Amino acid sequence: MTNGAPIDDVGRELPPNAVKAVQQAMSAPSVSYSITVRLEMPARPAAVSSITTAVEEAGGVVTAVDVSASGIDRLQVDVTCATGGEDDAARIVEALGTVEGVTIGRVSDRTFLAHLGGKIEIQPKMQIRHRDDLSLIYTPGVGRVSQQLAAHPEDAVRLTIKRNTVAVVTDGSAVLGLGNIGPIAALPVMEGKAALFKRFSGIDAFPLCLDTQDVDEIVRTVKIVAPVFAGINLEDISAPRCFEVEDRLRAELDIPVFHDDQHGTAIVAVGALTNALKVVGKDIGDVRIVQSGAGAAGSAILRLMLAAGARDVVLADVEGIIRADRPNLEPTLAWIAEATQGDRYGATLTEAMVGADVFIGVSAPNLLTEADIAAMAPNSIVFAMANPVPEVDPAIATRHAAVVATGRSDFANQINNVLAFPGVFRGLLDARSTRITDDMLLAAAHALAGVVTADELNATYIVPSVFHPHLHTAIAAAVKAAAEADPTAVAPD
Amino acid sequence: MTNGAPIDDVGRELPPNAVKAVQQAMSAPSVSYSITVRLEMPARPAAVSSITTAVEEAGGVVTAVDVSASGIDRLQVDVTCATGGEDDAARIVEALGTVEGVTIGRVSDRTFLAHLGGKIEIQPKMQIRHRDDLSLIYTPGVGRVSQQLAAHPEDAVRLTIKRNTVAVVTDGSAVLGLGNIGPIAALPVMEGKAALFKRFSGIDAFPLCLDTQDVDEIVRTVKIVAPVFAGINLEDISAPRCFEVEDRLRAELDIPVFHDDQHGTAIVAVGALTNALKVVGKDIGDVRIVQSGAGAAGSAILRLMLAAGARDVVLADVEGIIRADRPNLEPTLAWIAEATQGDRYGATLTEAMVGADVFIGVSAPNLLTEADIAAMAPNSIVFAMANPVPEVDPAIATRHAAVVATGRSDFANQINNVLAFPGVFRGLLDARSTRITDDMLLAAAHALAGVVTADELNATYIVPSVFHPHLHTAIAAAVKAAAEADPTAVAPD
Repeated sequence: MTNGAPIDDVGRELPPNAVKAVQQAMSAPSVSYSITVRLEMPARPAAVSSITTAVEEAGGVVTAVDVSASGIDRLQVDVTCATGGEDDAARIVEALGTVEGVTIGRVSDRTFLAHLGGKIEIQPKMQIRHRDDLSLIYTPGVGRVSQQLAAHPEDAVRLTIKRNTVAVVTDGSAVLGLGNIGPIAALPVMEGKAALFKRFSGIDAFPLCLDTQDVDEIVRTVKIVAPVFAGINLEDISAPRCFEVEDRLRAELDIPVFHDDQHGTAIVAVGALTNALKVVGKDIGDVRIVQSGAGAAGSAILRLMLAAGARDVVLADVEGIIRADRPNLEPTLAWIAEATQGDRYGATLTEAMVGADVFIGVSAPNLLTEADIAAMAPNSIVFAMANPVPEVDPAIATRHAAVVATGRSDFANQINNVLAFPGVFRGLLDARSTRITDDMLLAAAHALAGVVTADELNATYIVPSVFHPHLHTAIAAAVKAAAEADPTAVAPD
Repeated sequence: MTNGAPIDDVGRELPPNAVKAVQQAMSAPSVSYSITVRLEMPARPAAVSSITTAVEEAGGVVTAVDVSASGIDRLQVDVTCATGGEDDAARIVEALGTVEGVTIGRVSDRTFLAHLGGKIEIQPKMQIRHRDDLSLIYTPGVGRVSQQLAAHPEDAVRLTIKRNTVAVVTDGSAVLGLGNIGPIAALPVMEGKAALFKRFSGIDAFPLCLDTQDVDEIVRTVKIVAPVFAGINLEDISAPRCFEVEDRLRAELDIPVFHDDQHGTAIVAVGALTNALKVVGKDIGDVRIVQSGAGAAGSAILRLMLAAGARDVVLADVEGIIRADRPNLEPTLAWIAEATQGDRYGATLTEAMVGADVFIGVSAPNLLTEADIAAMAPNSIVFAMANPVPEVDPAIATRHAAVVATGRSDFANQINNVLAFPGVFRGLLDARSTRITDDMLLAAAHALAGVVTADELNATYIVPSVFHPHLHTAIAAAVKAAAEADPTAVAPD
């Protein structure tokens, strides 16, 4: 495990200057670093405004003020404010302490409060009120249902949770940008994912955080627990192990296996690219694409762009442009060298950028300069998706590019997996699909793009909000239709 | 797998006469075989009573009549009735069809209806309404919680679902009385168990139905998925594999591992025995006990009775009384021969019963005759817990024994595991116990017994209802106290 040093999307620790950029990027006040300060103060005119002023002067953003108790001459006030991080939070609390008459009480952190006790729970679907209810859902009634399934296991999709249940499986080896922090530290992320599955598409998802990072053991464990599930969502497993885990599970299981870091990202990126190309009036078959990053997300994006019709792509990783003549080319890169045009546009990322129509980044912070963006073709598209610090500052990129997207929530056009995975699995489950194909991924990408209407589409709105009322149902319908059109993907009824 | 032939509690297929007894025992009208018949009939006086009469004459018990639609001269009626099984149900539907003017519509089976889509679901604990909510519970906020856990994994009990989450693990090898029906057919039972965990003690339990029956693979799989859970409930794993699975998991995991078929049954049996002995005014240290059955439940009951102070026990299995001089004594029986008085009261069950104070049966149907019960000591106690057909007909046993209990819900004194497991795990989780000991099991048994007050206690009320308002909290408190008193069982805070 790393000791918390920031890493890039391919797992390397960041150099010191990049770490600084990450810290700056993270120090803007954010609701994800909110604190609530309970304080007591004399009841006097302008009491509350003296508090909010102190917070704002210390760099915080007040998001709520509750007078939680009041006496004849004292007030108890709970002030909630977004901060830029731990240091900022400490400075704000200190500033509040200097306001005349104020006594600081308990300071709580809204994010940690939101996670107390975990984020999901398991509920019976029916009331259990008396002995009759027990005898229906437990013994002896349940015995008849078990007998039915012993004779007809295919009825499990009707008579058990299987049809609507997905496992969110991780080994904790590549969690967010935090690296190999292990299964326990990954659990809050997997719980969040499970909560989003239910919220956005009604799917029951359960987190399985595995205490192994051995490919054979991961594959064996998932196969052994598979009977309860209708789908497997792999999550935050580091490359290149994630490729082998996914390939083997797809070959050996009769339910769909989806590695969200690969395919979720690819669906959203290709959906967003589809709309960005509409904005600039170019066709995917005609544009020249430069991509940086050949990890889990990078290889999946490339594969889906090719499936979508891209024909002229150059791909760079940390060693430069990937070409067939690179010495000791790894197997996971050989197909990339084969499928791309690595020998046509020079040896470095900067050389390749000259005249390119599209840049796709899933790599590391601040790889590109303003000059690199300026050297692109007119009406260029830049997706700088490294997290939390993009390959190029989007404010700089917009000076030259027609459409800019990032992975961040504080710029327009956020490329975020939660746009895709709930609808994708809803469609797979509704079709009772036994597998997932590139056709289904592409159908999801096009459905995502199609949710943005021609009236709405512009350079700062190429993807819908995750709260868009039709997004997840549109993706689900498209994936379901693609699965039902594939005779190899749908189990007989 | 068997092809559905009934088996006894130690896994042997039942002989034909016993199968007949099982079928007869199961053919009394039961809510677990309820049907709802939708029918249309002319609106006339006594219309509904003609329906209920028809059901009753055909052997059904009407439990609900809904007039679900009404026209000028027609009624639509939904009649729900308990039946004695498939044949009875068909006969009742046929009888309804002969009532004048009645047209039979859809016939549905209440038990199967109750299981449609499965019995549990996974819910987010908080609302997810807008981007701020997302950034608190998912990225970027969740990243801080993961960082905290990477540095302090022990905080998982505060910041994740771990503290309140239990795995219900089976390999489907010994499901109810149905035998080795496999993981999918076991799922309805495990879902039901999970529903009861939440209903009775607020625990989030998730079913893991393993696609292996190899001891090494079961142990390895449970260890690998363990990070998410605060406890493991093993369920319906056949003996003797269940002993090795439990022993190894207890040795290798730092969370409690509880095989409900063993210890749940033992807690309820010993709790019930404690009260039965109060009813007859005898002391556990003085009574002579004969037990039939040395499988999973049997060996656990014996162990807990010894821990509770029993000193004079004889144990029989299918080969007769277990004695140290039996040739080729299996290791799982050797300790039993050592701990019991197998050489003192003859070679057969019938011989041993003469003068015994207590009979405990967890074995096979109809092993004992009326004469066997009559030969016991005065004020005898008979627990005939074989399911669904007891070792002796309780109606016959009550002619001679002072207290009779069975595993069935249609006689007084039902020995049912659901009396114990919710409270046991609540106590273990509340204490953050790392293990479970015989002291804790015994504390649970005594707490269960103590819920029945001196005023309430009599020969037909030795165990409380599972819906008793204080039962599960009483057991939880006792187990928690026992865990907290054991310095080897509680993790440092």
